[in-house]
Amino acid sequence: MNLRQLGEDRLLARLLPSLSIHHGVIAGAGDDCAVTKPPRGKNLLLLKTDCVVEKIHFDATTDPVLVGWKAMMRPLSDFAAMSGGPQFALITLVVSPQRSSQWVKKIYRGLNCAAARFGVSVVGGETSSTRGPAVISVSVSGFVEKNRWVSRNGGKAGDDLFVTGRLGGSLRGKHLWFVPRIEESRWLTKNFSIRAMIDLSDGLGADLPRLARASKVGFQINMEDLPLNRGAKIDNAISDGEDYELLFAISPRDSDRLEKSWKRKFPRLPLTRIGRFNSKFEMQNAVLSEARRSRMDWKLHRGYLHFQ
Amino acid sequence: MNLRQLGEDRLLARLLPSLSIHHGVIAGAGDDCAVTKPPRGKNLLLLKTDCVVEKIHFDATTDPVLVGWKAMMRPLSDFAAMSGGPQFALITLVVSPQRSSQWVKKIYRGLNCAAARFGVSVVGGETSSTRGPAVISVSVSGFVEKNRWVSRNGGKAGDDLFVTGRLGGSLRGKHLWFVPRIEESRWLTKNFSIRAMIDLSDGLGADLPRLARASKVGFQINMEDLPLNRGAKIDNAISDGEDYELLFAISPRDSDRLEKSWKRKFPRLPLTRIGRFNSKFEMQNAVLSEARRSRMDWKLHRGYLHFQ
Repeated sequence: MNLRQLGEDRLLARLLPSLSIHHGVIAGAGDDCAVTKPPRGKNLLLLKTDCVVEKIHFDATTDPVLVGWKAMMRPLSDFAAMSGGPQFALITLVVSPQRSSQWVKKIYRGLNCAAARFGVSVVGGETSSTRGPAVISVSVSGFVEKNRWVSRNGGKAGDDLFVTGRLGGSLRGKHLWFVPRIEESRWLTKNFSIRAMIDLSDGLGADLPRLARASKVGFQINMEDLPLNRGAKIDNAISDGEDYELLFAISPRDSDRLEKSWKRKFPRLPLTRIGRFNSKFEMQNAVLSEARRSRMDWKLHRGYLHFQ
Repeated sequence: MNLRQLGEDRLLARLLPSLSIHHGVIAGAGDDCAVTKPPRGKNLLLLKTDCVVEKIHFDATTDPVLVGWKAMMRPLSDFAAMSGGPQFALITLVVSPQRSSQWVKKIYRGLNCAAARFGVSVVGGETSSTRGPAVISVSVSGFVEKNRWVSRNGGKAGDDLFVTGRLGGSLRGKHLWFVPRIEESRWLTKNFSIRAMIDLSDGLGADLPRLARASKVGFQINMEDLPLNRGAKIDNAISDGEDYELLFAISPRDSDRLEKSWKRKFPRLPLTRIGRFNSKFEMQNAVLSEARRSRMDWKLHRGYLHFQ
């Protein structure tokens, strides 16, 4: 059986239980970042790696500065989802010897600009050649206060669901120059109790069920309330992916205060209450199936759903 | 100008100064691990990433369990070079959808066995597809006591130079199933003041000049004293690479005590005094040039010197 036949999820389901895990791991593979206990201090160490691959995530016509920017910002978006502060990045660049050095320098320019945007230090890396498409892999480590890290599994039935920004149509450009919601996320956990959070990288139609499943709850969305990017339709908001906005759950007792404070703090960035968690765990997992199917078609076409 | 024309070293020399660096970085790109300051505690956080690429570091006939083993052990060997304790690993696997899931599972088996050998937790990772050769990238984080980490630049003229194990001929198999000298390295810094250390991944002919250059000293080697693997000749010890043994500098005052203690502690692993650092910094950099040239031919043939 090859990976195409097996599918990524089933592959991971087979691989994860066999992973080597020892003391000090608070959350390993399966959440946005790995949460680990540093030897001393009250902070947790966060670790995350992510990569972009030529002919999959970008092609020869994509501006390499933006490719580098995106390669760095993708793992940083996972830090936002955990309300962590990224600090150190390692970069792995696997590239053909035929590639122009100009292209590589532009990749690094994008990587460095993105890192500097959030005070992240690029502390090392690795370069290797390949006879195939280029790969840019970025690993980031950082910290989060023990009482501020937000996992995917703390949501409760009745929680209100919010998204930052606008959804859909990211492939027209935003997916290359997005800014992870780290400042917003840090502000959220400083001022509110956030029950569960995820960054929308695969689209609401995939990431919301993921968040609900982890929290063992169902969900209910008001489709007409979804905040849309210009030119995007509801279907795009559900299925496009690569929004890199935050989706989070909060007690309805805090919702009004949140909306008021948010408007003062981030007047130019919308925050939208799109629905709520409910107790219909099993049933709700099928709700967005139709939308997800169309998303999958799109993803297949784009090459994002790797092994299906 | 493409990378082949530019060469890896010149590429890095151009890239490194532009890396984004902020507070908390004690040693960034350029040493075996990045050394960074965790927010509290007396330990330093070590970060290292390394990768293996199909058709470069392995091919379709290589046992995938050993490919995974090697992919994990390579960055761990850098921890040995710093006397650090590795703790957490992130794995990135970029692979064609046509690849059999059996192959991927074996890769992970090798990765997990290697991680477990040193109590390293695999805390996450990333899988992506490619239309080209497979890439396995491993990032490791860990810690080292402030007073025990060993850089490359602390060597002094007059220091004795030691290597662990035997050199040369690694490509006949050892390069796939080697065990990094972490235990030995930890024992060394617990009991001795190690001035400078490096793991021999590119061969003595490349790594010794590197260590000397970082320490701003020259060196003098007794070629006939080099400890050789069975079937290997002096040329192999200098030029083959992938030995993954430790090369370190220590005050000659400590050498006799070291040799005696080592024999009691590691009776089955040779420790050999191969020469010493001297003050002829500039001149000595040319000493091994002939040997290095033959090594380069070999590396070119094997595809290891990536962009030259």
